[in-house]
Amino acid sequence: MTQKKTRLRVIPLGGLGEIGKNMTVFEYGNDMVLVDAGIMFPDDDHPGVDLILPDYSYVLRRKDKLRGIIITHGHEDHTGTLPYLLKDLGSAVPVLGTKLTLGLISGKLEEHRIKKHKLREVKAGGHVNLGVFGFDFIPVNHSIPDAVALFIRTPVGNVLHTGDFKFDQTPIDGRLTDYGALAAAGKKGVMLLMSDSTNAESPGITNSEATVGAALRSIFATADQRIIVASFSSHIHRLQQVCDAAVESGRKVVVTGRSMINNTKIARQLGFLEIAEEDLVDAYDMGDLPPERVVVLSTGSQGEPLSALARMANGDHKTVSIEEGDTVVISATPIPGNEKAVSRVINRLSSAGADIKHKGTAPVHVSGHAAAEELKLMLNLVRPRYFVPVHGESRHLRAHAELARATGVAEKDVFVLDNGDCLELTDSGARVSERVESGVVYVDGLSVGDIGKVVLRDRQMLAKDGIATVVIAVDRQNGKPTGEPELVARGIVSGADEAAFFEDARARVAKTLAKTAKEGATDHSVIKNAVRESLSQFIWERTRSRPMIIPVVMEV
Amino acid sequence: MTQKKTRLRVIPLGGLGEIGKNMTVFEYGNDMVLVDAGIMFPDDDHPGVDLILPDYSYVLRRKDKLRGIIITHGHEDHTGTLPYLLKDLGSAVPVLGTKLTLGLISGKLEEHRIKKHKLREVKAGGHVNLGVFGFDFIPVNHSIPDAVALFIRTPVGNVLHTGDFKFDQTPIDGRLTDYGALAAAGKKGVMLLMSDSTNAESPGITNSEATVGAALRSIFATADQRIIVASFSSHIHRLQQVCDAAVESGRKVVVTGRSMINNTKIARQLGFLEIAEEDLVDAYDMGDLPPERVVVLSTGSQGEPLSALARMANGDHKTVSIEEGDTVVISATPIPGNEKAVSRVINRLSSAGADIKHKGTAPVHVSGHAAAEELKLMLNLVRPRYFVPVHGESRHLRAHAELARATGVAEKDVFVLDNGDCLELTDSGARVSERVESGVVYVDGLSVGDIGKVVLRDRQMLAKDGIATVVIAVDRQNGKPTGEPELVARGIVSGADEAAFFEDARARVAKTLAKTAKEGATDHSVIKNAVRESLSQFIWERTRSRPMIIPVVMEV
Repeated sequence: MTQKKTRLRVIPLGGLGEIGKNMTVFEYGNDMVLVDAGIMFPDDDHPGVDLILPDYSYVLRRKDKLRGIIITHGHEDHTGTLPYLLKDLGSAVPVLGTKLTLGLISGKLEEHRIKKHKLREVKAGGHVNLGVFGFDFIPVNHSIPDAVALFIRTPVGNVLHTGDFKFDQTPIDGRLTDYGALAAAGKKGVMLLMSDSTNAESPGITNSEATVGAALRSIFATADQRIIVASFSSHIHRLQQVCDAAVESGRKVVVTGRSMINNTKIARQLGFLEIAEEDLVDAYDMGDLPPERVVVLSTGSQGEPLSALARMANGDHKTVSIEEGDTVVISATPIPGNEKAVSRVINRLSSAGADIKHKGTAPVHVSGHAAAEELKLMLNLVRPRYFVPVHGESRHLRAHAELARATGVAEKDVFVLDNGDCLELTDSGARVSERVESGVVYVDGLSVGDIGKVVLRDRQMLAKDGIATVVIAVDRQNGKPTGEPELVARGIVSGADEAAFFEDARARVAKTLAKTAKEGATDHSVIKNAVRESLSQFIWERTRSRPMIIPVVMEV
Repeated sequence: MTQKKTRLRVIPLGGLGEIGKNMTVFEYGNDMVLVDAGIMFPDDDHPGVDLILPDYSYVLRRKDKLRGIIITHGHEDHTGTLPYLLKDLGSAVPVLGTKLTLGLISGKLEEHRIKKHKLREVKAGGHVNLGVFGFDFIPVNHSIPDAVALFIRTPVGNVLHTGDFKFDQTPIDGRLTDYGALAAAGKKGVMLLMSDSTNAESPGITNSEATVGAALRSIFATADQRIIVASFSSHIHRLQQVCDAAVESGRKVVVTGRSMINNTKIARQLGFLEIAEEDLVDAYDMGDLPPERVVVLSTGSQGEPLSALARMANGDHKTVSIEEGDTVVISATPIPGNEKAVSRVINRLSSAGADIKHKGTAPVHVSGHAAAEELKLMLNLVRPRYFVPVHGESRHLRAHAELARATGVAEKDVFVLDNGDCLELTDSGARVSERVESGVVYVDGLSVGDIGKVVLRDRQMLAKDGIATVVIAVDRQNGKPTGEPELVARGIVSGADEAAFFEDARARVAKTLAKTAKEGATDHSVIKNAVRESLSQFIWERTRSRPMIIPVVMEV
């Protein structure tokens, strides 16, 4: 498995052609380092799937070479695969990151009861060596504090991996992206830049997080009843601004939703969220305060059906019920695919009498990712020889490639890769040398990887047209059908028509069986096919649907 | 069934709390008129459902009173229920609308093989009497030509129903909303205003359709290969602008997609779309033209999987294959719920090398609905006594109600209704008097109304966790199980684990059967319950999923 000594192999195992499950392998000779280990949340095309992981068998098969896993920031699309990966690796590979990143990871590992681990803190601005690789952690702005880009020294040249970033000129915590470090990297020489493509299609720049604070303050100043703010629980800067606006307007903060409670606790312990104990109120004590003195900080900005906000919208939250005149601020944007769920929650809250402020009606959200002009600035600071757009769907990667060309990167030096593509860099050049094993692993309940494509296709088909199972008893001796066929169906008919439908269907199957018997058919597959066809035809005539039909022949 | 003579009953049967299936009943004494008869397109919560209709049984039960059906414009959320309703009514009730509206309806009725109908053209600016009601058709701007608002004279006072509208100061066809007629209505006195709420949350005004033309011309001027434009096939103004920009840039237009071909044909015949015969090229002759001389006008702006654009994206369109450097313009906005599907198509087109222009990257789309400032202008022109926001989800209706209050309508005179609410107006006032039968009817394939809630719930459950059917043969004589249980499952396991899973599952069921037999159980429901429980437990242990389990006991 040892690679030739003169080659750096860069292999994205996730995050390309998609937003989510970011994971990149850096490999040189006998050393390998993984950058990020994220998950993706499934959409409606994956019924019953809870999580999607990148297929990391490539890493497992080379685990003796794995010197460490570096996590650029604490979002789940960069950290969520860690518990599964660490379990599969068996040994405690070092996990490196900044303080808040490790704080959030540590909570996750606890949930998964992983006790043996080596979390190693590296400060933003700090440095760490892993095998032949050297990593400088460069502070960048993002929608979570303590995020870093990585300047990676390798024997064939330097790589800059931006992580997720934006350039915020007025960040909430005063921690600017380290423009000097990026420029210095450019001066030293960067062979390869891998940069965040999420907003490559958006012209101009992404607004500063501080603009959201102004919007929140103006809403809080005029609201005369309770205020509920839903946001991402990891967006500590946003939570800080909500807390600040609350205190400023004479309100106490109530935190609700499991991840919101966990994350605010961790962030306060580690010094990333500042709010005095006396300004926080337990949800159960909220009743003691008049509504105009309360801000509820809640999960559910994505319309998740079991989240605190969705429960409030449905009127079944334990401690918060929406009153006519309450203000609800959705301080987030729906992740693609969640639009409908978010809209459903907004409609319910609205029906309950709440005044809703969301991105479409007030500037209560900004993105955490750089837009086109910032991406070009990154390219111009770093001046890379080769460019690989990462962290984006195809459309974003291609738009980012176009930006790179506009800043002067030669067309042939831009590589729009797929997950699993191995980019090999040597002193003399770069090329895609091979495609390694990659793909997705589904997590469904507690089982990992058991749901194959067949199961998913079956579920989609069941969802579309339902299922009918028909049971035929045949005489073990002579192979002839005995008695009436049994029929069960789901997702096809219901109500008043059901009885007649079943009776007619059974009659049709019985007729088919009589026919096959007359023709002397005793082969089960012949009987099954005949029954499947006649039942399918019958159901089509009656309902114009084509359910899955499963004939079962039972010897008795 | 005759109502008291002094009361106007206004009953929305669809369109409130939703975007789609618009339908409103106006009833006075022995006369009834229906305004609009639309459908709604189902989302992922309705697997296998093709269309959603409003439940119009209220209309059917009073069909002797029905003097006519007025359609405000030709969009399917205002016309699509007509074929079903007319069939159910049995008699040819007059359908009234403007020329293009009727042209599009006539095509639909033909598809449904409805030959007996009475389509009655009324010109915008014209007037018609139906029973005690008088209707003035007032021209308004919308994303389809020939749209009208209705000024309705009734014995208790005047009603203004806006239909779908915007105020476009530079409409493509020069046909302005008739501000004079609206102001005159306001002067005569409007008891009730019912107004389009779709964009009530959007501040400011909706841009003129003409701004899209400018964007298209600038894209067409710089594209050096083939251009494909996807849009709504009913958006004739948009199609006109595409045709104009094409001709101006020396390109021919190829029309593809069934509804696009049908609608351009109807619009040209009726004089709503102007393009010379020589500027249109058949898709099969496109190969004769160099790519830089072609614009393809296509369906599929909503990411519909079988549409022309989706086929191009997947590389299986009959006549158009995407080449590196082609330009694709998505001149539409995704209807809520379609975002993911549209994004999927964009990603595929992008992978194939196309340069994609969409709403997020270029001003290639504007809405057809009035934004907040226009809605307030409508309220100020009409100065109604009572106000009912229509055509919108709860959030939109409530936002519109707020706008009405801002223009001076008293809080108690604003009625935010649900579908089925009956608003009764008399000389002395307005009140919600009752709730009539209303709801949804699902169309699945060719069957109407057969899919009940049970079927939908079953399908959702099947989609989530799959299904297992277990068949147990029992001896007809002594009720004891005979032989091995049979098990079929879909959507639970697949691949290598399948055989072992089934073997173990059968063994578990056999063990349960042995136990029930030992306990002397012969009652089928007892056996079924025991089997269901043990199998459910087994599957949970193995897969952490809870599929639907259907035990079948078969007497042999």
